[in-house]
Amino acid sequence: MSADFSVWMNDCLALVEVCLDKHLATVDCAPARLHEAMRYVVLGGGKRVRPLLALAAGELSGADQERVVLTGVAVELIHAYSLVHDDLPCMDDDTLRRGKPTCHIRYDEATALLVGDSLQSLAFQILAQPGLTQNPGKQLEMVEQLAIAAGSRGMAGGQAIDLDSVGKTLSLSELEFMHIHKTGALIRAAVMLGAYCGDELNASQIKQLDHFAKCIGLVFQVVDDILDAEATTDTLGKTAGKDAENNKPTYVSILGVKQARELAKSIHQDACQTLDKLGADATRLRQVTDFIIEREF
Amino acid sequence: MSADFSVWMNDCLALVEVCLDKHLATVDCAPARLHEAMRYVVLGGGKRVRPLLALAAGELSGADQERVVLTGVAVELIHAYSLVHDDLPCMDDDTLRRGKPTCHIRYDEATALLVGDSLQSLAFQILAQPGLTQNPGKQLEMVEQLAIAAGSRGMAGGQAIDLDSVGKTLSLSELEFMHIHKTGALIRAAVMLGAYCGDELNASQIKQLDHFAKCIGLVFQVVDDILDAEATTDTLGKTAGKDAENNKPTYVSILGVKQARELAKSIHQDACQTLDKLGADATRLRQVTDFIIEREF
Repeated sequence: MSADFSVWMNDCLALVEVCLDKHLATVDCAPARLHEAMRYVVLGGGKRVRPLLALAAGELSGADQERVVLTGVAVELIHAYSLVHDDLPCMDDDTLRRGKPTCHIRYDEATALLVGDSLQSLAFQILAQPGLTQNPGKQLEMVEQLAIAAGSRGMAGGQAIDLDSVGKTLSLSELEFMHIHKTGALIRAAVMLGAYCGDELNASQIKQLDHFAKCIGLVFQVVDDILDAEATTDTLGKTAGKDAENNKPTYVSILGVKQARELAKSIHQDACQTLDKLGADATRLRQVTDFIIEREF
Repeated sequence: MSADFSVWMNDCLALVEVCLDKHLATVDCAPARLHEAMRYVVLGGGKRVRPLLALAAGELSGADQERVVLTGVAVELIHAYSLVHDDLPCMDDDTLRRGKPTCHIRYDEATALLVGDSLQSLAFQILAQPGLTQNPGKQLEMVEQLAIAAGSRGMAGGQAIDLDSVGKTLSLSELEFMHIHKTGALIRAAVMLGAYCGDELNASQIKQLDHFAKCIGLVFQVVDDILDAEATTDTLGKTAGKDAENNKPTYVSILGVKQARELAKSIHQDACQTLDKLGADATRLRQVTDFIIEREF
C-alpha cells in the first residue's frame, strides 16, 4: 500500500466514522436502549469497504467529499442492518461479529430486529436529506437505486436464495447469481452512487464503471469465502468455518481453495483493465480494489 | 356513511389494490418464495386506512390522485412490514393476522424477516420513483419524512418503547408518548405526504393539518385498544385480548372502556374542529375520520 493511499484511506475512514456517529441518535434520546444498540452495532468496527468504494468512485467524477461520505454512510447502514438481521437465530444464528457478541446476544432478539429495521430507515433518511447533491432529481434516482439494491431483487433477495441453497449443490453460475444479489448489489450501489455525487458521467463511463462494480462485488465474495475457509475465528472476528458447518455452498466448496484464488485473480484483472479505460481519475478506485483483494493474502 | 363517500372510498380502495399488486414482484421472479410471501402479507386484506388518509389529504391540496395512490401505497408497505416483524416470536408472537396465519407461520421466520426488510425497501423505492411529484426537491423531503416516521424516532422507536413497557404501569402521558411514535408517526406521515402531492399549502394550513394528523393517529390507537378489549378473535381477524394477556398497558387498561370511549370522542371532536378551519376541501378527510372512529361502535 502506498503511503499516499494509506493517508487518503485513513482520512476517509475518519470522515466516515464521524459521519456515522453524527447521524446515529445518542443514548439520551428515547428509546435509549434501541439507540444504544444501534451505536453498538455500527460504530467502532467494520472495514467500511462500501464507503471507501463510494469515496474512490466520487474522485472519478470530481465529487465533493463531504457529500460522498453521506452517500457511503447510507450504503454502510444498509450493510450494517443486514448483518444484524443475518446473525439472528432464524437466519445464520451467529454469536460473534467483528470480535464482539452479536446484537441479539448483547441485547435481545426483539431489539436486534428493531435495530436492523431502524438502520434501514436511517439509511434512506440520510440519502434523501436536502443538499446532499445539487440535483434533487438525480438524488431521487440515487434513493431509488439504493432501495432496489437493498430489496427483494437485490440484497434481501440474495439472502433468500442463500437460505434456499443450504444443503444443496449449486453450480458455479447459480452461486454467482446468488452473490450478485446478496453482496454484489450493495457494493455496486456504493460505487455508482459515489460517482453520481459529482459531475455527470457519459454513457461509456457509466457502462465501464458498472462493469467494474459488478467485478468488485463478485471478487469480494470469492475472497470472503477463501478467508472464511482458511482463517481462524480470532483473525476473522467472526465465527470461522461457519459456511462449511452450515453446509452452505461457497466458491471454496465448489472450486477448492486453489481454483477460487485463481478466479479471484482473474476477476481482479478484469476489474483493473476496466479501470484502465477510465483513465487517471480512477487511481483511487484501483488502490481500493487492490486493498480489498489483498486483504489477507 | 353517505353514498357519495362510499363510492369514493371503494374507488380509492380499488386503486390502492391495483397499485400494490403492480409494484409487488410476481412469483415467477426469483426468489419466488420471498415474492410469494410478500404478496401473501400485503394483498387481499387490511383496511388501507393510511392510503385512504393520504388520498383524502390529497383532495385538500388538489393533488393528482394517481400520484397520491403511490404515496399512500409507500406508507402502507411500511405499515405492512411492521406487522410482519411485530408478529414474529421474538416480538408479539402472534399466529393470526387479518384472519389468516401470520407470515412466519405460513412460511417460516427467516422468510418473514426478509419479507419485512424487503417491504421497507420497496416503500422507499416507490416513493423515490421519478415523476411521482413535479417537484423533486419536495419529493426528497417526503422520502426523508417517511424515513423519520418509520425509524427509531418514529414507528420502530415506538415498538421499542412498547416492548419495554410490558408488565409496567404507565401513566396516561407515557402511554400517549408510546403511541405517538408507534402508530401516530406513520398515520401522520400518510396525511402530510398525501397533502404534499398537490399544491403548496400555506404555513397555517400545514399547522392545522399536522394537528389533525396527530389527533387521528392517537384516536386510531384508542379505538384499536377498545376493539381489542371488546371484540372476539373472529370479528377482529387477529387474536383478541392479546394485549391484556401480554400484560401490555392500553387505554382500556389504564382508563377502563367507558373513559377510553369518552377520550376517543373528545379527540375526534378536536380533529373535526381542526378540519373545520381547513374549509370545504377537507370534506373527504372528515368522512375518512368518521369512518375510522365509527369502525365498530
